[in-house]
Amino acid sequence: MRLAELSERSGISSATVKYYLREGLLPPGRRVSATQAEYEESHLRRLGLIRALTQVGRLPVATAREVLACVDDSSLDQHSRIGAAVWALPHGDRPAPGDPEAAAAERTAQALLEDLDWNFSQSAASASPAYRMLVGAIAALRHLGYPCGAENLLPYARAAAQVATSDLDLVAGYGDAEEQIEAAVACTVLYEPVLLSLRRLAEAEESNRRFNAEG
Amino acid sequence: MRLAELSERSGISSATVKYYLREGLLPPGRRVSATQAEYEESHLRRLGLIRALTQVGRLPVATAREVLACVDDSSLDQHSRIGAAVWALPHGDRPAPGDPEAAAAERTAQALLEDLDWNFSQSAASASPAYRMLVGAIAALRHLGYPCGAENLLPYARAAAQVATSDLDLVAGYGDAEEQIEAAVACTVLYEPVLLSLRRLAEAEESNRRFNAEG
Repeated sequence: MRLAELSERSGISSATVKYYLREGLLPPGRRVSATQAEYEESHLRRLGLIRALTQVGRLPVATAREVLACVDDSSLDQHSRIGAAVWALPHGDRPAPGDPEAAAAERTAQALLEDLDWNFSQSAASASPAYRMLVGAIAALRHLGYPCGAENLLPYARAAAQVATSDLDLVAGYGDAEEQIEAAVACTVLYEPVLLSLRRLAEAEESNRRFNAEG
Repeated sequence: MRLAELSERSGISSATVKYYLREGLLPPGRRVSATQAEYEESHLRRLGLIRALTQVGRLPVATAREVLACVDDSSLDQHSRIGAAVWALPHGDRPAPGDPEAAAAERTAQALLEDLDWNFSQSAASASPAYRMLVGAIAALRHLGYPCGAENLLPYARAAAQVATSDLDLVAGYGDAEEQIEAAVACTVLYEPVLLSLRRLAEAEESNRRFNAEG
């Protein structure tokens, strides 16, 4: 398809599509004349992923480019490409350097991973930005005196494991490996607000059940 | 305790504590002389909640003040105070006005609530900012062509319900109603990065299990 059709089908203006091409977020089309290029379904899909990252995930263009470079890195296997792309996403607060609670938070995170039936080696987990984010979140809970022992965190981890199973089930619904990698990264970002909004609705439901029933 | 001790025990500078007093986030202490006031344990606890909202939740001071006003609204019962405070938190993207996907997204959200064993009346749910956030997240998934039927969302909702049970269990560990309300609001905010980081770790674990085992 030509640029005009790509724009119409994606609902993204031609100017924005050209911007994504210039910034290297969208791979170039196949040139068919000096002024025209031909785009494929894969370009349309890529535009969806770019929108997921920049609009819903609010990633700066430079970060989105880094994530997409991992998605496209054909020197890696499928698992590593998804992993590398998710590592390149923003991960919120890490523990501040020299934070006195960070060491205790890290022990809690390690105890949690040991309690779970997860295969991470300790060193692999420690290198992961999601793990650093977890340690930062536990350190914040410790600073403010809220409960955050491994026994408190375990039910959250079990729920997260169920969510991850659903995530990968969604991804498995896609035909080929390229599509699966793109869907895995997009759904990681797009399902975060789904999960957080459902948690707040579920909290209201549970609070109503407990406190209104008593009151 | 005096301001200096409050500052030391909370780890928050006197200048910042005074700023919170001026901005009405922290209730005034009991005046004991023209220049000195006496603070209670409840002030220390409140400082923890203020830090949770402003540092981890990144709420602007005006929004934090609104949340705390709900926490302190003794004309409401406990369930309503928690609910009102959580409603006052930021809720991310709502559907854009006139979004053609919003109506379909709303039907999906309604179908999901019907599938769940939750007591929300439809009108109560629709008024909630968490529900608007859910509709916005589904609309984004629809725009980008990712799977988002009620059947796709149901496992996320079930996991959210489990998380909410853990949230309220944490809260129930606190002694009195005031502390429970503060803890409910703080844990809503502080456990979001816990949940999101654990989801990413669990995704890596699940992806490794599926793709590396095959590859």
